[in-house]
Amino acid sequence: MIKTLEWTDGGVRFIDQTKLPTEETYVTCKSYEEVADAIRTMIVRGAPVIGVAAAMGVALGARDSKAANPADFDAEFNHICGVLAATRPTAVNLFWAIRRMKEKYKSVGSQPMPEIKQQLVDEAQRMLVEDIAANLAMGKHGAALLPASGGVLTHCNAGALATCGYGTALGVIRAAVDSGKQLHVFADETRPFLQGSRLTAWELMKDGIPTTVISDNMAGAIMSQGRIGAVIVGADRIAANGDVANKIGTYTVAILAKEHGIPFYVAAPFCTVDLQTADGSGIPIEQRSSGEVTHMAGKQMTPDGVQVENPAFDVTPHKYVTAIITERGVAREPYTKSLQDLAGR
Amino acid sequence: MIKTLEWTDGGVRFIDQTKLPTEETYVTCKSYEEVADAIRTMIVRGAPVIGVAAAMGVALGARDSKAANPADFDAEFNHICGVLAATRPTAVNLFWAIRRMKEKYKSVGSQPMPEIKQQLVDEAQRMLVEDIAANLAMGKHGAALLPASGGVLTHCNAGALATCGYGTALGVIRAAVDSGKQLHVFADETRPFLQGSRLTAWELMKDGIPTTVISDNMAGAIMSQGRIGAVIVGADRIAANGDVANKIGTYTVAILAKEHGIPFYVAAPFCTVDLQTADGSGIPIEQRSSGEVTHMAGKQMTPDGVQVENPAFDVTPHKYVTAIITERGVAREPYTKSLQDLAGR
Repeated sequence: MIKTLEWTDGGVRFIDQTKLPTEETYVTCKSYEEVADAIRTMIVRGAPVIGVAAAMGVALGARDSKAANPADFDAEFNHICGVLAATRPTAVNLFWAIRRMKEKYKSVGSQPMPEIKQQLVDEAQRMLVEDIAANLAMGKHGAALLPASGGVLTHCNAGALATCGYGTALGVIRAAVDSGKQLHVFADETRPFLQGSRLTAWELMKDGIPTTVISDNMAGAIMSQGRIGAVIVGADRIAANGDVANKIGTYTVAILAKEHGIPFYVAAPFCTVDLQTADGSGIPIEQRSSGEVTHMAGKQMTPDGVQVENPAFDVTPHKYVTAIITERGVAREPYTKSLQDLAGR
Repeated sequence: MIKTLEWTDGGVRFIDQTKLPTEETYVTCKSYEEVADAIRTMIVRGAPVIGVAAAMGVALGARDSKAANPADFDAEFNHICGVLAATRPTAVNLFWAIRRMKEKYKSVGSQPMPEIKQQLVDEAQRMLVEDIAANLAMGKHGAALLPASGGVLTHCNAGALATCGYGTALGVIRAAVDSGKQLHVFADETRPFLQGSRLTAWELMKDGIPTTVISDNMAGAIMSQGRIGAVIVGADRIAANGDVANKIGTYTVAILAKEHGIPFYVAAPFCTVDLQTADGSGIPIEQRSSGEVTHMAGKQMTPDGVQVENPAFDVTPHKYVTAIITERGVAREPYTKSLQDLAGR
C-alpha cells in the first residue's frame, strides 16, 4: 500500500509528489514549519491528506514545544495552527482538521504537558486511520454506481496519494474493480500540475488497473466516441447546496458529461462538506504561481511577459452532479436536504 | 509582418515553429523531402500554410528535377506529390494544394521543362499571396461578428503562423481590433503541442493585442465568470454539412460555448471546405506520437509503459457552430446549403 504520509519519531514522512512518477522518494518534515512548506509546495496535495498532514504538523509542533505548562503553550499552539491554516485556502479539510486538533487540545488542556502532547499526536494518527476507513466505506457505497465494464474518466488525482490511502474517487474505482467490474480508467493529465499523468496513472498502474492518459482537451472527443460510462472525481470543498470545488477543469468535465448523458460522480469524505458555505460562490479559489503554466520541466513555454491565469480550482454547480459519495452514504438532489441528512448520521 | 514561409532561391524558408517563442530561428528546406519533413515534424503547421508549404515543396522538387522533358518528368512529379501528400492526413488544404499543383502541371505539361518549372514555382508563390488575401477578406467579413469589447477565446493557433500571414481566426481578431474593438484574447495553451501558449501568445504580443494564456481546462471557469464574449477558432477540414475538424480540444470548447450561450465561430479559407466529405465522420483524424503527451521539454511526465492516446484533431458537429467565416462570405445553418452557395461564388 502506498504510504502517502506517515508519523515517525523523526517527523512526518511524505512521499514526494513533486518527484513522481519517475522518482519515488520520501521527505521527512522535522518541524511544523516544514510540514507547512510541504503543503504549500505540493510535496503533499489532495484535500483529505492535507487535512491529516496539517493535523500531524500541529502534533509535531506541540510535541516539540518547550512550554512547561498549558498556560505557556496556548499562544504557541494557536500560532502553529495559524501557520498551517495559511498554507492553502480552498480545501476545507485543512480547516476541519485544524479545528479538530483545537477541540482536542481544549478537551485535554487541563492535563500535564506530556499528556497533552501525546493526546495531540494520537489524535492526528487517529485521523489517518479514520481517513482510510472513510475511503473504504466510500468504495462500498460507490462501487455499485460505476458501470459493469468500460471506460471511467477521472480528473486530477483523488487516489491514495490525495488521501492517507486507497483514495476517494480512485477508491471507488478500486472497489468496483475488486467487485469484478472490468473498468478502464481514462486519466486527464490535469494541467498545469499534471496530477493525472504523474500521480493517478502511477498509482493505478501499481494496482494493475488499465489506465490511459489523455490531455485534458481530449476528454470531449473520447466521450463523443461512446467510450466513457461514468466520470468520477474528488472534491476540495462541497457547499451546503452541493456545489463542488475541485481541481481546475472539473467544471469543464462536468459540462462534457452532461452533454453526453454520462453520470458525473463526486467522492469525498464527509469532512469535505462545508455546511457553513451556502453555495459555491462562497468558496475561496486559490490562484497559484504563473510559473506552473508558463514553464514545463523548467523550460519556458510562453513569450516573455505574457499574462497568465492559474486558478487551482473551479466550482461545479450542483445541477451537474449526479451524486456525491461519502463514507456516510450517497447524497443526491436536492443536496441541501440530502447533505443535511448525512450530517445528522 | 511574420514570414511564416517564403520562397527563396536556396529553398523554402520557414520560421521554426517548434522553437518559438523563446527562439526565433529559420530553417531553409533545400529539397521537397526536407519540406515534407518540416510538415511532418511541425516545423511548419496550420492547415492553410501546410497547403502552401506542400505546393512550394512540389515546386522545389520540380525545379530541381534532372528530367529533360515532361515524358521523363511525369513519374517523378507524381512521386513528389505523393511524398508531400503522405505527411499529414487531416488538413484538407494539403490535398487541395497538391491537386492545384497537379492541375497546373497538366495545363502546362506540353511546354518545355524550364517553362513548366517556372509555372509551378509561380503557382506556389501565387498561392501564398492568395492565402494572405483570403485572410484579409475573412477579417473584413468576421470583424463585425466579434463583440465591441471584452474577452475572446481562441484555441490552438489560427494566426499568421498557421497561414502565410495575418491568420484566419487571429486575422478576424486583428481586423476587429483594427476597427476599434477593445478585445482581450484568452489563448488556450493547447496541449500537447502548445500552439496557444507558444505561438498564439507570441504573435498577438508582437501586435500589442492583450493576451492571457490559460491551460485548456481553465476555459470553462473563465466562461462561467462571464469574461468571454465569443470563441473563434480555425479549421483543418470542414465537411459539406458544416462539421468542423480542428485541433484536439476544439469540440470541448464548442460545448462549453454552447453551455454558456457564447457564439462559436470558425474562420477558414474556402479551400478548407471539403464538399466531397458529407459529414465529420468521414474526416481522417491523425494520431500523433505518444511522446508528445508523455514528455514535456524532454522530461518524462507519465509512468513507464502507461497507455496514451494522442489524437491531433477532433470533430465539432455543425450544431455547435454559430457561423463559418470564409473569404467568400459567412456561412450559417443550414450549412449544407450555405457552403454550397459559397462554392458557387
